[in-house]
Amino acid sequence: MPSGVSAADLTEVLAGRWGWVRDEARAHLPDALFRTDPHAPMDVYRDEVLDVVRAVAATGSTAHGFPTAVGGGGDVGASVVQFEMLGFGDLSVMIKSGVHFGLFGGAVTSLGSEDHHRRYLPATIAVERVGCFAMTETGHGSDVASIETTAVYDPATQELVLTTPHEGARKDYIGGAARHAQVAAVFAQLVTGGPGEEPTGRGVHCLVVPLRDDAGALLPGVEVEDDGPKAGLNGVDNGRIRFTAVRVPRADLLDRFARVAPDGTYSSDVQSASRRFFMTLGALVRGRVCIAAGVGAATQQALAVAVRYGLTRRQFARPGADGTSEEVVLLDYRAHQRRLLPALATTYALQLAMNELTGRLHDVQSAPGEVDEGEQRELETRAAGLKAVATWHATSTIQTCREACGGAGYLAVNRLPQLRADTDVFTTFEGDNTVLMQLVGKGLLTSYAEDFGEMGTWGTVRAVADQVVDRLAERSTARVTLQRLREAVPGSDDADLRDRGWQMRLLVEREAHLLVGVARRLRRAKAPGADAGAVFNDAQDHLLAAARAHVDRVVVEALVAAEDACEDDAVGELLARVGDLHVLATIERDRAWYLERGWLTPGRSKAVLATVNELCEELRPDARLLVDGLGIPERWITAPIAHGQVGQPSGDGGGRTSTGAQGAPAGGSAAAAVERVPVQAG
Amino acid sequence: MPSGVSAADLTEVLAGRWGWVRDEARAHLPDALFRTDPHAPMDVYRDEVLDVVRAVAATGSTAHGFPTAVGGGGDVGASVVQFEMLGFGDLSVMIKSGVHFGLFGGAVTSLGSEDHHRRYLPATIAVERVGCFAMTETGHGSDVASIETTAVYDPATQELVLTTPHEGARKDYIGGAARHAQVAAVFAQLVTGGPGEEPTGRGVHCLVVPLRDDAGALLPGVEVEDDGPKAGLNGVDNGRIRFTAVRVPRADLLDRFARVAPDGTYSSDVQSASRRFFMTLGALVRGRVCIAAGVGAATQQALAVAVRYGLTRRQFARPGADGTSEEVVLLDYRAHQRRLLPALATTYALQLAMNELTGRLHDVQSAPGEVDEGEQRELETRAAGLKAVATWHATSTIQTCREACGGAGYLAVNRLPQLRADTDVFTTFEGDNTVLMQLVGKGLLTSYAEDFGEMGTWGTVRAVADQVVDRLAERSTARVTLQRLREAVPGSDDADLRDRGWQMRLLVEREAHLLVGVARRLRRAKAPGADAGAVFNDAQDHLLAAARAHVDRVVVEALVAAEDACEDDAVGELLARVGDLHVLATIERDRAWYLERGWLTPGRSKAVLATVNELCEELRPDARLLVDGLGIPERWITAPIAHGQVGQPSGDGGGRTSTGAQGAPAGGSAAAAVERVPVQAG
Repeated sequence: MPSGVSAADLTEVLAGRWGWVRDEARAHLPDALFRTDPHAPMDVYRDEVLDVVRAVAATGSTAHGFPTAVGGGGDVGASVVQFEMLGFGDLSVMIKSGVHFGLFGGAVTSLGSEDHHRRYLPATIAVERVGCFAMTETGHGSDVASIETTAVYDPATQELVLTTPHEGARKDYIGGAARHAQVAAVFAQLVTGGPGEEPTGRGVHCLVVPLRDDAGALLPGVEVEDDGPKAGLNGVDNGRIRFTAVRVPRADLLDRFARVAPDGTYSSDVQSASRRFFMTLGALVRGRVCIAAGVGAATQQALAVAVRYGLTRRQFARPGADGTSEEVVLLDYRAHQRRLLPALATTYALQLAMNELTGRLHDVQSAPGEVDEGEQRELETRAAGLKAVATWHATSTIQTCREACGGAGYLAVNRLPQLRADTDVFTTFEGDNTVLMQLVGKGLLTSYAEDFGEMGTWGTVRAVADQVVDRLAERSTARVTLQRLREAVPGSDDADLRDRGWQMRLLVEREAHLLVGVARRLRRAKAPGADAGAVFNDAQDHLLAAARAHVDRVVVEALVAAEDACEDDAVGELLARVGDLHVLATIERDRAWYLERGWLTPGRSKAVLATVNELCEELRPDARLLVDGLGIPERWITAPIAHGQVGQPSGDGGGRTSTGAQGAPAGGSAAAAVERVPVQAG
Repeated sequence: MPSGVSAADLTEVLAGRWGWVRDEARAHLPDALFRTDPHAPMDVYRDEVLDVVRAVAATGSTAHGFPTAVGGGGDVGASVVQFEMLGFGDLSVMIKSGVHFGLFGGAVTSLGSEDHHRRYLPATIAVERVGCFAMTETGHGSDVASIETTAVYDPATQELVLTTPHEGARKDYIGGAARHAQVAAVFAQLVTGGPGEEPTGRGVHCLVVPLRDDAGALLPGVEVEDDGPKAGLNGVDNGRIRFTAVRVPRADLLDRFARVAPDGTYSSDVQSASRRFFMTLGALVRGRVCIAAGVGAATQQALAVAVRYGLTRRQFARPGADGTSEEVVLLDYRAHQRRLLPALATTYALQLAMNELTGRLHDVQSAPGEVDEGEQRELETRAAGLKAVATWHATSTIQTCREACGGAGYLAVNRLPQLRADTDVFTTFEGDNTVLMQLVGKGLLTSYAEDFGEMGTWGTVRAVADQVVDRLAERSTARVTLQRLREAVPGSDDADLRDRGWQMRLLVEREAHLLVGVARRLRRAKAPGADAGAVFNDAQDHLLAAARAHVDRVVVEALVAAEDACEDDAVGELLARVGDLHVLATIERDRAWYLERGWLTPGRSKAVLATVNELCEELRPDARLLVDGLGIPERWITAPIAHGQVGQPSGDGGGRTSTGAQGAPAGGSAAAAVERVPVQAG
C-alpha cells in the first residue's frame, strides 16, 4: 500500500536548516550546468566548465560563504549547501567551483588576515582571477606534514623563495593548474630564522603565489605539466607545478597562525608546532564536508534514474501467464529491490546526517572568539568519517544503479557513466578514505581516553556505551526511543527487530566494544621491547572497524533526530520504515560480527535478513515517491531512460511470436528471470 | 620468507592446454594493441581500433577457431585463449575482434551450413567484410525469446522480409552497427507456412543480412543510429538498427537447425521449439567463455599495476622512527595487503577454473557427432556461472586497484581508468550476471532433480554432497585430499583451517544445502491456489546464493586439480598458500551464513579471519613474484607507476623539514596511516 505521503513532505524533511539555499538553487541554477558536453575535446570541455562556473557565480550564490566585509554572505552552512546542489549537475563544475571558491578562497579566508581578505577575496568572488590549491605533491598526498616544497625567507629582499627540490616534490593533481589558474594557495615547508639564528624548518605554511599573468602566460620560475585525461572530471584541468626560485613578497604568507618579521624572526600565537599544523589544516575541514554533501547529490541523481527506469522497464513474462499478459516490471523482482531500495534508504539516512554535520560546521566556524579544541576535533572526526562513508556509498550505489539499468545504463546519454567516473576519485581526494577512517579511530581513542583513562578492562564497554546514550539523551527529545535504548540488551532475542531503541543499542555497544578492544591491543605497543609498527599494523583493521561503527552510529542518531522532529504521522511512519531498512541493512552487513560475539543468535540473524526483505516489499509501492522526495527538479534529470523514452517494451503484449521457450539471456538488460526457472523438483 | 619459486614456474601452472597460444601472443601481438588513444575523437579512435584488429588478424591468430575447410585452425580452445590474450591490451580491440570473429563468425559457423561457411567465412577471416551480431533489442535484452523483429517468408520471391515493428524492437547496443559493419547476423522471429498453411511464428532464427555496400553506404531499408559515447569501450561503434521491409534471400537463413522450403514449408530435425531455441543459443556459449577469459586478463593487468605500485610507493614514517628513516612501503600495511592479496589469490583460482572451462568447451564443441545434451547443459551452466563471477570479480578488483593507487590511479596514463570503464559492461553483456546466475541455479535444479527426484528432505543434502565428492574422486588424483574430503565434517572445530579437504567439504555441503532448500521452497509454487510468481520471487535470492555456492565449489575444484598436477614441491607449497587465501577469503565472505547454521562456531569464524591475515603476511614477500607469474610481458605493462617512474618519494629521507606532527591527510595517496595514530590509552 502506498503511504499517501506527498513528495514535498519528504523534501521538507530532507531540507535541513538551509532549505532556502536549496530552493534558490532549484529556481536559479543555470540549465547549462545540466547540459555540458564531457565528450567534447578536453580543452573545449574545460573552457565550457569554467564558463558554467562563471554563470553560477553570476547568480550570486557562490558568495554565501565569504566574509561580509568583502561582500560575502558570511554564512558557512549556506556555502556548503550551495556546493551540494551543484552535485546534481556536471560534477566537473562542482569541483572546479569548489577548488576556486572553497579551497583557494577558503584558504585565504581561514589562514589569511583581513589584509589578505581585502586584497584577494573580491576578485575571487567575481572570478576575475582563477585560484587553485597546491597542497598535494607527487610523493606525498596523505602525509601532508612530509611535503617537500620549501619556502625559504630571504631578509635581504623580504621575500620567500619557493623551490621544488626534486620530481617527487612537484605539486600534483592540482585542479586548475593545467590551464586556468592564475593564482595558487601553495603549501610549503617554511624555513626562516631571525638575526643571528640559523634558518630553521618551521613546518607547513601557506602562501599566495601568482602562476599566470592576465594573458594566461606562465610567470618566470613556474613550470606546469598537464596531468592529462583522467577517469572522470575531465572538465577540471589538473596539473603539476614545479617552482624554481619563485620569489613571493613576505606579505603573501597567510599569517593567521604564524608570522615572519622583516628580519626573519618567526613568531606564532600557537606554541606547539603540532598544534599549529592541526589548526592550519583544521581550518580546511569545510572541503571534506562539501565533498560528502556533493557526492550525496550525485548518488541521489543516480538513484532517481535507476529507480524510475526500474519502474517502467519490463522483462520476462510472469510464470504461468499466457502470451498476452504484460511482462514484469523490474522493481517487482526481489533481487532488483534488494539492489536499489536499501541503497535508497541509506541515502536518506546519510542526507540527514550530512544536514547535521553542515549545521555543526556552521556553528563551530561561526562561533565568536577562539575555537573550542574539543568541538573542532569532534567536527573533524565526523567530517572525516562521513566523507569516507558517503563517498564509498556513492561509488557502490552509482555502480549498482548502472548495472540495474543494463546496457542503457552504460550509455553516456543516461548520465550514470559520467556520475560513476566523476565520483570515483572522491574516495581519494580531500583525504584518502582509509587514511580518514584511521583519523576517525584516532579521534575516538583521544576522546574516550579523556573520559575513561586507561580504558583497559572490558567493563569499560558498558560505561562507554552508557555515556553515548547519555549524550544522546541531552540532545534528543525522543524520550520513548531513549527509554528503550537504555533498557535494551543487545543479545536479547525478545525485542522487536524494528525497535529503534534495540537497533541503536546494538550499534552503540558495537562501537564501544570495538573501541575498547583496539585500545587494549594498542597498549601492547608500549610494552618494553615491543615492535610498535607490528602492533599498529596488526590492529589496523580493528581500528578501521571501530571507526566505521562510530560513523554508523552517528548516522542513525541523525535519523532518530529527524524522526523526533517529524510531526506528521504518515510521514513519520514512512520515515520509520526507511530508517528500519537502513539500520537493518547495516546490521545485516555486519551480522557475522554480531554472531561471533553471540549478540545475535542464528535465528535472529536470519530474521534480520527476512525483515530486510519484508521492508523492501513494504517500500516498493513508495519507491517513486521516495525518489521524488529527493526534490530533484524534472529538468535536472536529463537521462532519457528516467522519462520512459528509451527501452520501453511494446506494452500491448500482442503481436509477439515468442516460442515460450526458456530464454538463455544475452545482451543488455538487468532483468531478473526467476519466473523462467521451471520447478524441477517437488 | 620469499618462496624461491621462479615466475616462469607459476606462468607454466597458469598456462593450461593452450600455452602455445599464449606464447604466440607474447611474441607476436602488435605493440599497437597496447598503445591506442582512447581519448582521441570517437570516430578516430574507432578507426584506430579497427586497424589494430586487422593488424592482429594479419598475424593469423584470429583464424584459430574457424573450420579447417575454410582455412581456419579448427581449434576452439585456441580461439578462446587468443581472445583472452587480447584482454591484456586495449579492450575495445578485444571486443571489436570478438564481435567480428567470435559472434558474427561464430554464428555463421555454428548456425550455418557448409554452404554458408564457404560463402561467408573466408571474407570474415580476412576482415574483408566487417560483421556484427544483431540479437539484443531496445525492449528485450535478457529475454531473447521475446524479441520482436520479424522475418516473414515470401514464397513469391523466395525471400525473407525483415521488419522492425516498433521502436522497442530496433536492434540496440550492436557493436559495429554505428560505423563499420557491412553484414549482420540478425536474430528475428521467423514467420512462415507451407502451401495452404497459415503463416506461423516459428521462434527465433538467425539470418545473414547485408547492412552497407563496399563504400560503406547503408543499403535500402536499413536505418542506423549511433548509440553515442559510452562509459567505456568507445573504440567499439555500438548502434541501433531499424529494418523496413529488407528482403533477404532464403539461402541466407542460417539453417543448421531448421529450414524453410521454397514453398514456405518449415522443417527442423529438432522437434521441440524450446529445444531448438536452446540449441540455437547454446551454439553461442563460446562468447560467454571468451568474456570470462578476457576479463581475467584485464584483471591481471590491473593487479600487476597496483601491486607493483604498492611495492614502491612509500607513505608515512614508521612509528617511533626518527626523521631520517625511510617511509613505509604501502604493501606493508595490513589494510593494503587485505585489499590486494586476496583478490590476487582469487585471480589465480579463476584462471585455473577458466582453463578447465576452455578445455571443456573445446572438447564438447570438437566432439564428433551429436552433442550430448547433458554435457552441453553442464557446459552452459559453468560458462554462465564463471562469466558472472569473473566479471563481478573484475569490476570490484579493478576498482580496488584504482583506489589502492590513489590519485595516480585516476590518471588515464596509468591504465586503470580505462580498464575499469571498459570492463564495466562485462557484467551486463553476453548475459546480465543476475540473469545468468539464475540460469546456473536452474541448471543445477535440473541436474540434481534427475539424480534425486523429489529432493524433498534434508537427508538429501548429504546424498547430494556425497555425489559431488564421488564425481570429484573420479577425475582427481589427489587421493589424500579426497580422503580428508570424505571424512571431514563441516561443523567440526578440529580440522586444520588450511586443510583443503575440510574447506572443500564446507563448500560442497553449502552448495547442497542451498540447492535442496531452494528446491523445497519452489515446490510450494505447485500447491493448489499458489501464487507462483510470489513463490519464485521470494526464493530469488536463495536461488542466486545456491548458484554462487556452486561456482565457488567449481573454482576450488580447479584449484585442487592444479595442485594435484603440480610436481615441484616449492611451487606446490606456494600454490597451496594462494589456494588457502582464496578459499578462506571465500569462506570469510560467507561466514555469517555458516555461523547461522552452526557450521562455524564463533571461535572458528574468528580464526578464519585471523588466518586470512596470516596468509596475507606470508604471501607478502612473494607479491611481486605472484604478479610476475601472471606472465605479462614488460612492454605490455604501460602504466608509468608500475615502473616506478612517477610518485616516488625522494627515498633518501634527508633534507626533509617535517614537523613530525599528526598529518591530517589530504590529496592523492592511498597510504594507510596507522603508524601516525598515537596510543592514547594504556
